[in-house]
Amino acid sequence: MLTNNLTNLLKIDYPIIQAPMAGGITTSKLVAAVSNNGALGMIGAGYMSPIQLREEIRDIKELTSSNFGVNLFVPCEFEISENEVEKTNRLLNRYREELNILEEKITLPNIENAFQSYMEQIQVVIEEKVPICSFTFGVPTADVMEKFKQHNVTTIGTATTVAEAISIEKLGMDAVVVQGSEAGGHRGNFISNHEESLVGLMSLIPQVADTVSIPVIAAGGIMDGRGLMAALCLGAKAGQMGTAFLTCEESGAHPLHKEAILHSKDVDTTLTRTFSGKWARGINNKFTMQMGKFEGTIPNFPIQNALTKSIRKASANQNNKEYMSLWAGQNAKLARGETVEQLVQRVMDEARIVPDNLV
Amino acid sequence: MLTNNLTNLLKIDYPIIQAPMAGGITTSKLVAAVSNNGALGMIGAGYMSPIQLREEIRDIKELTSSNFGVNLFVPCEFEISENEVEKTNRLLNRYREELNILEEKITLPNIENAFQSYMEQIQVVIEEKVPICSFTFGVPTADVMEKFKQHNVTTIGTATTVAEAISIEKLGMDAVVVQGSEAGGHRGNFISNHEESLVGLMSLIPQVADTVSIPVIAAGGIMDGRGLMAALCLGAKAGQMGTAFLTCEESGAHPLHKEAILHSKDVDTTLTRTFSGKWARGINNKFTMQMGKFEGTIPNFPIQNALTKSIRKASANQNNKEYMSLWAGQNAKLARGETVEQLVQRVMDEARIVPDNLV
Repeated sequence: MLTNNLTNLLKIDYPIIQAPMAGGITTSKLVAAVSNNGALGMIGAGYMSPIQLREEIRDIKELTSSNFGVNLFVPCEFEISENEVEKTNRLLNRYREELNILEEKITLPNIENAFQSYMEQIQVVIEEKVPICSFTFGVPTADVMEKFKQHNVTTIGTATTVAEAISIEKLGMDAVVVQGSEAGGHRGNFISNHEESLVGLMSLIPQVADTVSIPVIAAGGIMDGRGLMAALCLGAKAGQMGTAFLTCEESGAHPLHKEAILHSKDVDTTLTRTFSGKWARGINNKFTMQMGKFEGTIPNFPIQNALTKSIRKASANQNNKEYMSLWAGQNAKLARGETVEQLVQRVMDEARIVPDNLV
Repeated sequence: MLTNNLTNLLKIDYPIIQAPMAGGITTSKLVAAVSNNGALGMIGAGYMSPIQLREEIRDIKELTSSNFGVNLFVPCEFEISENEVEKTNRLLNRYREELNILEEKITLPNIENAFQSYMEQIQVVIEEKVPICSFTFGVPTADVMEKFKQHNVTTIGTATTVAEAISIEKLGMDAVVVQGSEAGGHRGNFISNHEESLVGLMSLIPQVADTVSIPVIAAGGIMDGRGLMAALCLGAKAGQMGTAFLTCEESGAHPLHKEAILHSKDVDTTLTRTFSGKWARGINNKFTMQMGKFEGTIPNFPIQNALTKSIRKASANQNNKEYMSLWAGQNAKLARGETVEQLVQRVMDEARIVPDNLV
């Protein structure tokens, strides 16, 4: 029941994938719990060093014998404008002062380092024989794809538009995650521009399913059995759930982040570039509202991300949610504080009920 | 099959409502064809004079004995800034010149007239015993609601957020249309601001269905049986389809408007205030792109609507799609040029297949 070519490919019981949320959320405990409960656990490795990634993979292997996966950020070119950085630093200094961040030495990102780290992450995935690897912010090169194929790694791309899904299929990937405008966290667009990329799943899933022949995984606002069944009706083969897993007991998200989601109202999320320089959906706080005025002039990812790093960290350490990035999807209101087992079971129970109400 | 408390209330065979698109699209031919085929036809009466509305209702009654409805724009206060109007007129003059619009006398809207016309429209709906009346851009006053109740008119509000749906239920309306960010045409937000109102149906339907007890009708990107079933999975009792009916043979939409939708790509729609002063989703053309730069300074609805009226009209008359408002939802790519009968039958056939694929 509810199994298909994708669940077979990924060797999972249920058509549920835990979204690979970067930044300490997808702990080994969370990933293993998801995989142990019949869904697919995913490491959000975007900000991990190759060493950290290897450690986490090994930890997970001790906790589960089921399939799990890794998600990598594909690095893209960027240019640092000293003028832009200086201007933004002046805006950010009030937060540094408020949070008592003294004598900070900001390390600006370097494209060579980013690319080297990414290639090492890929090496780790292959050496550790992780069966599944997904990508965000772009697609791997043909060379990298060839390497994955040689080692039988199942590859999954992330698309926000039909054009991006087509490029993922052409590259020979095994499946595509379509990220709707509802989704929390960073936007994954890499061919289409920001505005073009804001397509609701009700439109995005059928358009992509009609165009590509690889299985489609739906991401954005899926929180329960209703959302999962809707995604399947539209042509997806599975749902990728982020916010719903973020608030689970096993997740490594900061308690204030979980709390902000669990107490959120329906209109609390916003799209913002203020934290990282890349558009992302999260819950409004002082930082998104105050810095939002300068949205147009702040540096691109990953430069802005580097500039705000100490602010986000100090804010979290001081239990102050106003300067933390509180990523969440548009359906945050439906989140609960369950265990992974409870969440997966509930979603599947609800999903089983849905068709009876329709026919 | 697929009947529920809403289809019973509206006395329709199928959970499909034809969206009340204003501006000459919902001709008597279209509305009657929809109602004759087991769905609910709706007159988009927003820009109609009370006399035109009465004529159209009478025409429809000659063509069908089934239920149909009327949609009204609820007028809201506005202030005219002569400076703003003058500035915008200077921007618009290049289009007037290009389209050979000579010696135009623009009639600026007047709130008293708008309100009087709306009250007369209500009187027509009641006198002509139209069984169903829906509202956009706001909600009627308690007095007006009382009048509708006395005459057994079923009332339907339009909401873009949970807060708006709650206010509609509190007022005693019988059902609520939830308009997702995917939807074509004007945004219906009246409590929430524009950004807050851009919620995808995957999030909006379950949140509203969990909150109100009146039936929820989903609008935005529903083009086929997949979309309809997805909306029902999420908790809606029917789908309201605009773009799909707009391209039907019976629709009164301009041939260029239909063509633009039938040949559209997935990323062709945009949200724009340029035509009317109120945010609306349509297919990009020269006007939306060139005037889009002044989005922040053009007058509000209905002032901008009055200023661009002759431009839109001349553009349509000259078969030039570049200065027409080509309203369409994010799923425009899925539109076909069918008859109403073909569309309704196809959607229902597809909807019947969906559950078999899931269980």
